[in-house]
Amino acid sequence: MQIGIVGLGKMGYNLALNLRNHHYEVVAQDVNAESVRKIGEEGGITTANTLKEVCEKLTGRRVIWLMVPAGSIVDSVIEELLNYLSADDIVIDGGNSHYKESVKRYNYLKSKGISYLDCGTSGGTSGALHGACTMIGGDKETFAYVERVFKDISLENGYLYTGASGSGHFVKMVHNGIEYGMMQAIAEGFEVFERSEYDINFEAVAKLFNHGSVVRSWLMELTENAFRKDPHLDAIKGIMHSSGEGKWTLETALDLGVPTPVIALSLLMRYRSQQEDTFSGKVVAALRNEFGGHAVEKAN
Amino acid sequence: MQIGIVGLGKMGYNLALNLRNHHYEVVAQDVNAESVRKIGEEGGITTANTLKEVCEKLTGRRVIWLMVPAGSIVDSVIEELLNYLSADDIVIDGGNSHYKESVKRYNYLKSKGISYLDCGTSGGTSGALHGACTMIGGDKETFAYVERVFKDISLENGYLYTGASGSGHFVKMVHNGIEYGMMQAIAEGFEVFERSEYDINFEAVAKLFNHGSVVRSWLMELTENAFRKDPHLDAIKGIMHSSGEGKWTLETALDLGVPTPVIALSLLMRYRSQQEDTFSGKVVAALRNEFGGHAVEKAN
Repeated sequence: MQIGIVGLGKMGYNLALNLRNHHYEVVAQDVNAESVRKIGEEGGITTANTLKEVCEKLTGRRVIWLMVPAGSIVDSVIEELLNYLSADDIVIDGGNSHYKESVKRYNYLKSKGISYLDCGTSGGTSGALHGACTMIGGDKETFAYVERVFKDISLENGYLYTGASGSGHFVKMVHNGIEYGMMQAIAEGFEVFERSEYDINFEAVAKLFNHGSVVRSWLMELTENAFRKDPHLDAIKGIMHSSGEGKWTLETALDLGVPTPVIALSLLMRYRSQQEDTFSGKVVAALRNEFGGHAVEKAN
Repeated sequence: MQIGIVGLGKMGYNLALNLRNHHYEVVAQDVNAESVRKIGEEGGITTANTLKEVCEKLTGRRVIWLMVPAGSIVDSVIEELLNYLSADDIVIDGGNSHYKESVKRYNYLKSKGISYLDCGTSGGTSGALHGACTMIGGDKETFAYVERVFKDISLENGYLYTGASGSGHFVKMVHNGIEYGMMQAIAEGFEVFERSEYDINFEAVAKLFNHGSVVRSWLMELTENAFRKDPHLDAIKGIMHSSGEGKWTLETALDLGVPTPVIALSLLMRYRSQQEDTFSGKVVAALRNEFGGHAVEKAN
């Protein structure tokens, strides 16, 4: 079976190799010529420099897997692909698109006779290469046509048809919301360790927690790895970036009226970590000074 | 080696069996005669009806492992044991005592010539039987004398000497704080699923998440088990009890000045779940009515 892979970032590149390793005929493309050249050298992968070329190199009912950044890039890739696709071709969005965008794209492509699946992909870059965790929404017939692909590139039991269009990205979005909360919970616990009177070996404790404790988890294994490399994380700052799914989970929870304080605070702590100082802090400090004469710390 | 087990609740009972399976000479005691009778029938375990009897049946340097509820019961058991113990005997508190209480007990027993270890025990009742996760604080010499015991009853790499007195219960306390946050994060995600427009199979999604996703964890496996037994959890109420460690983690974080919003909110959501209605809700509803004439819902 042939598959086009559009987007050769860390995820797309590894996914292309994963597919090749499962004997798919991969046609790989990226806007970055260097990425295209590099994957060409991996062997066993056909490369393409344009979307037109991808479509020309695929025969029969085309399957094109997008691994491009969420947002307008997905739309512009789809718009260009429409020039070259034929009826019944299948486009899979394997990125972290907002599920509502995926539903819109599904409907738009349906009006053009093109099938669309939204695929949430978890497991990080190593998962993309060695066995991902995929959750797929869209028409069941379309899913059935490419089910074998998801089965092959995922771990055993690591793929799931989640239902109607958008549900794959919806489940992945909430997965990431859960991930935010779990990470923040782990992080808060280790900050309590770090500030305590005890001289705690963080790596040893994380390792212990992975051997029989209730909190054993892949994230705790990653915690153990991080402390093994840098016992007090001296080399990095505690600035936490995010790429949208936590915010979307919270927005969705707010729309649905679901109280999700842990997911909310996990997100807000990320935002706080990106601020050196806060205006709200200045306001509270100023108010304490106003009503009680409490000392404020002067800005330089 | 001989070991006295005091307290044959779910944890103590299974720990006694675990020790027996590792060829220790166990002397098991509980205030509940029925529990003592029952474990006697398991075979290979010596029973005792009183603490005096436990001490009489142990020879040489005694090792007595307490698995009794945290709080004053630990103190009263220790007080009574002091009548029968000899210098250098070792008492291990394997329950969920507050680490500050453990430090007090360590100092008190030290003044009487008795050694004391605080042992946090994770992994649930199945862990107590088949391989626990233990974290032990106290004097290193005392730990060294009984290290083999911890090694035998724990999973491989599942025990750790965490340092000075209190550190074992401290690490276990924070472990439980992390656990609160992870559980609440998972729970919030599934409530978003439950309230969403999609018809999501919770068991299937939890199972998927355990196969290659970032949030794979023992808690997600338990989530999968729970949904397998009851697909929408129709049979239970969402009332979340707690037994203290989350509260202690938050109190400790407050004392240390560590911002732990996720652990805090996980605890507060448990308290909220125990209320049918809230007085704070009445106050806000009344205020909205006062300033804006917004409708209130009448109490019956």
